[in-house]
Amino acid sequence: MLELRLVRGDVLKKVLEAIKDLVNDANFDCSSTGFSLQAMDSSHVALVSLLLRSDGFEHYRCDRNISMGMNLANMAKMLKCAGNDDIVTLKADDGSDSVTFMFESPTQDKIADFEMKLMDIDSEHLGIPEQEYQAFVRMPSTEFARICKDLSTIGDIVEISVTKEGVKFSTRGDIGTANIICRQNTTVDKPEDATTIEMEEPVRLNFALRYMNSFAKATPLSNQVTISLSEDLPIVIEYKVAEMGYIRFYLAPKLEEEEADAIVNKPQADSKPKADKKPKLEHQPEVQVKPEILVKPEVEGLVDSKLQVETRDEVVEVMDEE
Amino acid sequence: MLELRLVRGDVLKKVLEAIKDLVNDANFDCSSTGFSLQAMDSSHVALVSLLLRSDGFEHYRCDRNISMGMNLANMAKMLKCAGNDDIVTLKADDGSDSVTFMFESPTQDKIADFEMKLMDIDSEHLGIPEQEYQAFVRMPSTEFARICKDLSTIGDIVEISVTKEGVKFSTRGDIGTANIICRQNTTVDKPEDATTIEMEEPVRLNFALRYMNSFAKATPLSNQVTISLSEDLPIVIEYKVAEMGYIRFYLAPKLEEEEADAIVNKPQADSKPKADKKPKLEHQPEVQVKPEILVKPEVEGLVDSKLQVETRDEVVEVMDEE
Amino acid sequence: MLELRLVRGDVLKKVLEAIKDLVNDANFDCSSTGFSLQAMDSSHVALVSLLLRSDGFEHYRCDRNISMGMNLANMAKMLKCAGNDDIVTLKADDGSDSVTFMFESPTQDKIADFEMKLMDIDSEHLGIPEQEYQAFVRMPSTEFARICKDLSTIGDIVEISVTKEGVKFSTRGDIGTANIICRQNTTVDKPEDATTIEMEEPVRLNFALRYMNSFAKATPLSNQVTISLSEDLPIVIEYKVAEMGYIRFYLAPKLEEEEADAIVNKPQADSKPKADKKPKLEHQPEVQVKPEILVKPEVEGLVDSKLQVETRDEVVEVMDEE
Repeated sequence: MLELRLVRGDVLKKVLEAIKDLVNDANFDCSSTGFSLQAMDSSHVALVSLLLRSDGFEHYRCDRNISMGMNLANMAKMLKCAGNDDIVTLKADDGSDSVTFMFESPTQDKIADFEMKLMDIDSEHLGIPEQEYQAFVRMPSTEFARICKDLSTIGDIVEISVTKEGVKFSTRGDIGTANIICRQNTTVDKPEDATTIEMEEPVRLNFALRYMNSFAKATPLSNQVTISLSEDLPIVIEYKVAEMGYIRFYLAPKLEEEEADAIVNKPQADSKPKADKKPKLEHQPEVQVKPEILVKPEVEGLVDSKLQVETRDEVVEVMDEE
Repeated sequence: MLELRLVRGDVLKKVLEAIKDLVNDANFDCSSTGFSLQAMDSSHVALVSLLLRSDGFEHYRCDRNISMGMNLANMAKMLKCAGNDDIVTLKADDGSDSVTFMFESPTQDKIADFEMKLMDIDSEHLGIPEQEYQAFVRMPSTEFARICKDLSTIGDIVEISVTKEGVKFSTRGDIGTANIICRQNTTVDKPEDATTIEMEEPVRLNFALRYMNSFAKATPLSNQVTISLSEDLPIVIEYKVAEMGYIRFYLAPKLEEEEADAIVNKPQADSKPKADKKPKLEHQPEVQVKPEILVKPEVEGLVDSKLQVETRDEVVEVMDEE
Repeated sequence: MLELRLVRGDVLKKVLEAIKDLVNDANFDCSSTGFSLQAMDSSHVALVSLLLRSDGFEHYRCDRNISMGMNLANMAKMLKCAGNDDIVTLKADDGSDSVTFMFESPTQDKIADFEMKLMDIDSEHLGIPEQEYQAFVRMPSTEFARICKDLSTIGDIVEISVTKEGVKFSTRGDIGTANIICRQNTTVDKPEDATTIEMEEPVRLNFALRYMNSFAKATPLSNQVTISLSEDLPIVIEYKVAEMGYIRFYLAPKLEEEEADAIVNKPQADSKPKADKKPKLEHQPEVQVKPEILVKPEVEGLVDSKLQVETRDEVVEVMDEE
């Protein structure tokens, strides 16, 4: 028996809106600690990790760990039928092949229940180890979303470079080049307007703007976004979810040195060869990644430095243990 | 000579927005009692009835009864050119083949007149007798519109069932099932938020959601909608128009027993055979329904229990007298 | 060295939105007096003239006169990336083939620079002499935009007729006819709501609504629009730009007498033959109009009385001196 009651049902609506375009089908994992999801995007380049802790729910009953396969587009359709002030309850009987979403209006005058068939999804729990990052940027989420959208009108790839002074987002395209610098600023009237930078050494990495724009769909969930960067690691874009958890998006940097050079137009004194770097996402030993679930080595003609695999091999390198 | 002056011109704008997608061409009938319209929708399944009483107009002059054939899309285009605060006057000279809409801004600084050719439309006055209904539901019109829209994302047919406790709207589709219950509630702060149920016996009927969504375009006209249901009769969805009349939409229930069973998933103790039931819309004896105006027996492959006719027959059964 | 700093950067954003759909590529001319543009629309029927005076900028440095060819769609894309409160600075080094737009947020926390390649555009400065007009109409810009949009739903050509009482906009189409009269009104609470008419003699002229709707995209720039009309001249639609200049749109009237008669439906006592009239836009002697840059003699099958040329001739008559 599973019964999760969330008075702020709009949170679950926003979570689905944030991930439904990135992931088609996924397993939601339910245990005593919380309600979580981990899934690769449909092109197997980005990774989403969601956690809603059990203590964030008004009522949380989960008798045994279960994994529920859902089509996220259909789940989003159903959650769109909930009012923004509705209380949402997710229910599933033991052994049932369906899940029920119950929506209660604040006055209890309108009660809706939507039942959806569960799916059998072949997937694996991808262990994501806690990592040390070289740089963290915390900034207003709407600012980050605006920058990604603006740069997309000029180019396809964003170079993010972090120094003590601030974070710079750059791109270049047929019509010209663009650089946007956000300076560190902690003396603001409202804490959600702050831009904070913590770093050990300067970082400069390239990412596909298409994915950044997808991640930015989580903007309504949180006033601030946290960006974690390291030369050796996929970027992590994190949105807190209503003091009960988070959505994290992982994306490997673009490798191509020439491409990076072309964007930067500066000598790369601090650049190091990147081709041999080991990806750092860790594959939990208890779950075997199926060889047919392959991480695509290319996005739009460019090779990704991380999340890359030796295809058709029993040992998948992407999520290899360190 | 016809001259109808309406200070709240936005009412006429909203009336046209409510019916223009349902009906292509129709005759507006003008007499000393008021300005009215009755028309089947273009697929001959639903019926619209509009009445704006003469005493609701600031000035109402109608020297003799006339019937003016108009293309509703064109009429709506012209009315869209009126400002929301404009006074609208409808004018037609005796024997003229055109009608003029005059729009005056509240300050009288802007005066517009739009002239539209009238059409010769072959139609007949369909007498709609006052009927006894088994159940009435009165509820916020935005709530009803929201429910129809939400259920359309799941299925094509809505089952409406009324009991003393409330009204339930249900549907089912490929992705799952949905049930929305609105409880009776008369103790609300604002009267327009009330949901009231009057009934003699429980009713449960199926309707095409596509039409329900069309009818819901009248929502801006009124805070409340009244739904009248009877096993033997087409549903009536009524919106009051600014204390001067109403728009009523009539739609026959879906017959298919299997379909109904499939949606309900419950034993139907109170279900009776419906195939032999006589439709209750009454054909006024003074007007002869032309055989070529046929009520389509099918909507999307499903047979309607009412509004069905013996095609190509001189006596059209649809609007038969009781 | 060129450096133009505009604290109200939204003004430049709105200027581009106003002209980007009308003109593809154009030269911006920069001198000590100001920043200006003159360009024919892409179908060579209408003419845009923009002036932003140097004293309207917070900082204005222009060491020598330069002409910068830009693609307006790309320039608009870049300016869209500026926030509405941003300070915009336009910079170009001497001899550089690119221009930089710098956007500073009011708090200086976000600084963006967008660099765009300049283009070599074959064009000529079209001298537009100051003219005497028979009638001026000054009216709310939103009212003018609304009228053009409304009439476009009915017909393709607007007849503008000015008398002492007011200005009348008329059209006719397949579905009917429309006349909108705006009366002179100077006793309004807010000056931007006034409609003022100055005239020597009544004027009545026809114009393509398609262009009027294009011009109306400048509406966000100014609360009021000024319309100058003369039988012998292209209409001038002028929007003031933030007390630092203007955008003016020029369009030749439609010639066809029959067409005009058809719209007006009245005897034309004051109509004179128009075919022999000389166009009044003046071609500056120092710049030679290239014969391949031809003003199209037809718009949508109708002959324009002005802006018409003897094609393939060394002497282009359109912009002939008087």
